[in-house]
Amino acid sequence: MQEKAVLLIETEDERGLVYKVSSVLYEMQINIDQNAEFVEKDIKRFFMRSEISGKFDESELLFKIKNTLPEKAIVKVIPLKKKRIVLMVTKEPHCLGDLLVRHKFGELNATIEAVIGNHDTLKELTEKFNIPFYFVDHSGMSRHEHEEKMAEIIDSYKPEYIVLAKFMRVLNPEFVKKYENKIINIHHSFLPAFIGAKPYQQAYERGVKIIGATAHFVNNNLDEGPIIAQSVISVDHSDSAENMAGLGRDVEKIVLARALKLAFEDRVFVNRNKTVIFE
Amino acid sequence: MQEKAVLLIETEDERGLVYKVSSVLYEMQINIDQNAEFVEKDIKRFFMRSEISGKFDESELLFKIKNTLPEKAIVKVIPLKKKRIVLMVTKEPHCLGDLLVRHKFGELNATIEAVIGNHDTLKELTEKFNIPFYFVDHSGMSRHEHEEKMAEIIDSYKPEYIVLAKFMRVLNPEFVKKYENKIINIHHSFLPAFIGAKPYQQAYERGVKIIGATAHFVNNNLDEGPIIAQSVISVDHSDSAENMAGLGRDVEKIVLARALKLAFEDRVFVNRNKTVIFE
Amino acid sequence: MQEKAVLLIETEDERGLVYKVSSVLYEMQINIDQNAEFVEKDIKRFFMRSEISGKFDESELLFKIKNTLPEKAIVKVIPLKKKRIVLMVTKEPHCLGDLLVRHKFGELNATIEAVIGNHDTLKELTEKFNIPFYFVDHSGMSRHEHEEKMAEIIDSYKPEYIVLAKFMRVLNPEFVKKYENKIINIHHSFLPAFIGAKPYQQAYERGVKIIGATAHFVNNNLDEGPIIAQSVISVDHSDSAENMAGLGRDVEKIVLARALKLAFEDRVFVNRNKTVIFE
Amino acid sequence: MQEKAVLLIETEDERGLVYKVSSVLYEMQINIDQNAEFVEKDIKRFFMRSEISGKFDESELLFKIKNTLPEKAIVKVIPLKKKRIVLMVTKEPHCLGDLLVRHKFGELNATIEAVIGNHDTLKELTEKFNIPFYFVDHSGMSRHEHEEKMAEIIDSYKPEYIVLAKFMRVLNPEFVKKYENKIINIHHSFLPAFIGAKPYQQAYERGVKIIGATAHFVNNNLDEGPIIAQSVISVDHSDSAENMAGLGRDVEKIVLARALKLAFEDRVFVNRNKTVIFE
Repeated sequence: MQEKAVLLIETEDERGLVYKVSSVLYEMQINIDQNAEFVEKDIKRFFMRSEISGKFDESELLFKIKNTLPEKAIVKVIPLKKKRIVLMVTKEPHCLGDLLVRHKFGELNATIEAVIGNHDTLKELTEKFNIPFYFVDHSGMSRHEHEEKMAEIIDSYKPEYIVLAKFMRVLNPEFVKKYENKIINIHHSFLPAFIGAKPYQQAYERGVKIIGATAHFVNNNLDEGPIIAQSVISVDHSDSAENMAGLGRDVEKIVLARALKLAFEDRVFVNRNKTVIFE
Repeated sequence: MQEKAVLLIETEDERGLVYKVSSVLYEMQINIDQNAEFVEKDIKRFFMRSEISGKFDESELLFKIKNTLPEKAIVKVIPLKKKRIVLMVTKEPHCLGDLLVRHKFGELNATIEAVIGNHDTLKELTEKFNIPFYFVDHSGMSRHEHEEKMAEIIDSYKPEYIVLAKFMRVLNPEFVKKYENKIINIHHSFLPAFIGAKPYQQAYERGVKIIGATAHFVNNNLDEGPIIAQSVISVDHSDSAENMAGLGRDVEKIVLARALKLAFEDRVFVNRNKTVIFE
Repeated sequence: MQEKAVLLIETEDERGLVYKVSSVLYEMQINIDQNAEFVEKDIKRFFMRSEISGKFDESELLFKIKNTLPEKAIVKVIPLKKKRIVLMVTKEPHCLGDLLVRHKFGELNATIEAVIGNHDTLKELTEKFNIPFYFVDHSGMSRHEHEEKMAEIIDSYKPEYIVLAKFMRVLNPEFVKKYENKIINIHHSFLPAFIGAKPYQQAYERGVKIIGATAHFVNNNLDEGPIIAQSVISVDHSDSAENMAGLGRDVEKIVLARALKLAFEDRVFVNRNKTVIFE
Repeated sequence: MQEKAVLLIETEDERGLVYKVSSVLYEMQINIDQNAEFVEKDIKRFFMRSEISGKFDESELLFKIKNTLPEKAIVKVIPLKKKRIVLMVTKEPHCLGDLLVRHKFGELNATIEAVIGNHDTLKELTEKFNIPFYFVDHSGMSRHEHEEKMAEIIDSYKPEYIVLAKFMRVLNPEFVKKYENKIINIHHSFLPAFIGAKPYQQAYERGVKIIGATAHFVNNNLDEGPIIAQSVISVDHSDSAENMAGLGRDVEKIVLARALKLAFEDRVFVNRNKTVIFE
């Protein structure tokens, strides 16, 4: 018997969806604590997220909701609990450090099961917080072999999300495909500006007055997945590319943390190459 | 027979409200085009806003919704149409100018019926746009007499909102009471900082690094009504109070326009001294 | 005899530049009311802007400063006065309306000499403010012929800046070359994101969470000139491309006005494809 | 012989100050790598900050500069090196955690000599990073006794700054006076809004749409010292006071870090109850 859960529904739009869902909940004596719907009109697609509470059988609820909705509707009932996550990192400590501190003090809404690095720079920091660190050196290995080795570690933890906390290697499509809608990356630019390498150098050379960071799912081409969160900060002519990187690091870690909070609270739907987010 | 309307509901919270409302709509074959609910848990109060469409009789809908809800529920069905508004101004042109241009090009979602000034500085600007301007001089009059004279003009236009677009006189409680939840003011500070006169001078003297503006309902004490929208801009030590005022004017007019958009689309509930806004 | 002026210096960097300039000013009993320098280290280039006051002969000052600096130094002494500008527009009124209101109330630091439109949509608005409007229809004309006709009007006013206040036609390189560092454009995206046509549609399709606007010099390829000012605003999945355009219009007009203020106060150096701005 | 230093000058304004300072530097063959001046016109006060390089004797430079300036001029030559700091904390880990990670990876421009807590909650976190933690319990002690005990620890480290990284006790005027212009606090509101206790609760009750944080010197009354940096974040009616606190923590740690960067690079002058900051 569940007490609290999130109900997620995605289906083609038609009249009466709210009525149908709410009547199942009413009949089962389930409270709606929070509720939000959205219809993407271009493609007539309906998204709904409800925070529900009461004494109910999860599979009964799922069955009844599915029964009342169009055949292809996607319905999930997700009990309230912390997500299991694995982090992937390279050398930069700011995102990892931020997540480790939040994790230690119960502010992450997730348990960090392990950290994988393609360098060992961040091993010491990770282990200070009693989290296992796996150094998976990529030297002398094909990209595919390297990813297989990392996937093996990842799979042993059965994580719900994989967080690229400044993991600076491109991932093969097979790896990405395997963890569809599960890999969240922080990119150090205000996408789609400055896709690819050295975005702060690019920003410096272009002479922009605002830089930013983007947290997104990695589902396809690098830096082109569905965007979850973005934020920006002002710069000027006196900021070198290095200064911009320093300013940007603060934006990156905050944007990543904000995106993870949204994802871990099951507030994010992936809608083709975009997201629908119920804040 | 209505075709499009906004349905607003405010009531004490209880289980099944969404179900009850949505079943009336379903039964009457009314579509929900957009829908949002919010429960203020502290005070167990439920707010709901739906954009609905279909062929329906407004009073039938109102009757049926009221019938299904708790006795004290507040229910409104508001047909989609432009609001009627009257502006009150003093000498500063930036908010008035902005609203007149939006109005002329159909971007205000309201018709400006008249402008009332306690100075005649903005008469020429207003009349360029073929809007009647009433110069109601306050000299030699009590505040009460002055307000009575303005109220007479206002009432002749039966406006749904009165917009204080930099009207720089304090209003008596009776005037404010008469137009409860109908007067929207733009205050030139980031409330509750710098209540009262000369906020930019106050901001300059305090040495703040960010200034702002606040659009709010005027329901009680000056500058203490329910806040609709706020925005800010960075300043530094080199900005004089006068510079800050210049920067602030840009913020003021944008914040006021944004608040009016929200109000005119019936997205704003007044909830005691706060607002619930469905964006 | 000048009383107040801005002194602008750009030269290759070397030791003693501040000393050399300040000793000329000291010797001529000229006050420095505000002063700022910047050295772009990559290219060893020195930029200096001083607001000066006193009784001095402009050409004597220019001669003495040039004499003390490296041969190729660029030195300007610009008396404090309003710039002369010509606006170019198409159909959208928000930037034009904003500039006309600022102009009328003395907040633009420039005189709008004329407005040229390739449509006549904004003729009535412009003439309300007693500014001449030239409708230069491009139909049945080559781009070159059209631009020649506009250039003739522009040149008759000898403007210091040409402001593209939502002028929606691409300009030929010859036109742009002719008015180097004098044409300021407002682009409706956060450059370099969404270069080219329909940026809000592009932003909508990419699912970004922040949109913006960019004011820049037009010196070369469209949307690739030196950036003067940028600003952004948050959006979410519920914003259609049309909504984004509405939100964006507010950003556009404020960013354009801010960039013009900087340019008209002679605070902006063009430094290759970037700007150095002394705020 | 110094190689790199920051030169700070504060004096009553008069003509020729830039000339006089720059001629000393030129004569001593010292390079100006960066330079900024500001005159507060209301009080005719001149502030100057120069980053200088070359081979020079620090006391000779100081002597010559002082000699050329008005008698009461304040002149400092500060060699480029990391500041020594002591942190004071209570129970919240977000600011401390952020500073410890920055410190460990060389991004703080300071050495954290010690952390003092009036609770022992953060002892474990601090010691993970090999920094001494002093638990100075205030129970059973007068405020004065407690502060004397902390001052003893502080003084043993001879820190240049004391950082209140969410130290939640009011400090006596004697303590504050002793460390004038040396104590930097992070306050969890957008000052001067919500001075005092529980600012997020106050913000929630007032229904503001933006919350913020303020880093400032503690020189006098609590929350009323010279402001160094501020930043804000949007909230809405659905954010509880607790949510606001969560959002605010991210703002707090970033604002504090930004203020410390400015202070540690000797960019901040205290000018009565305000700051002059050369970024």
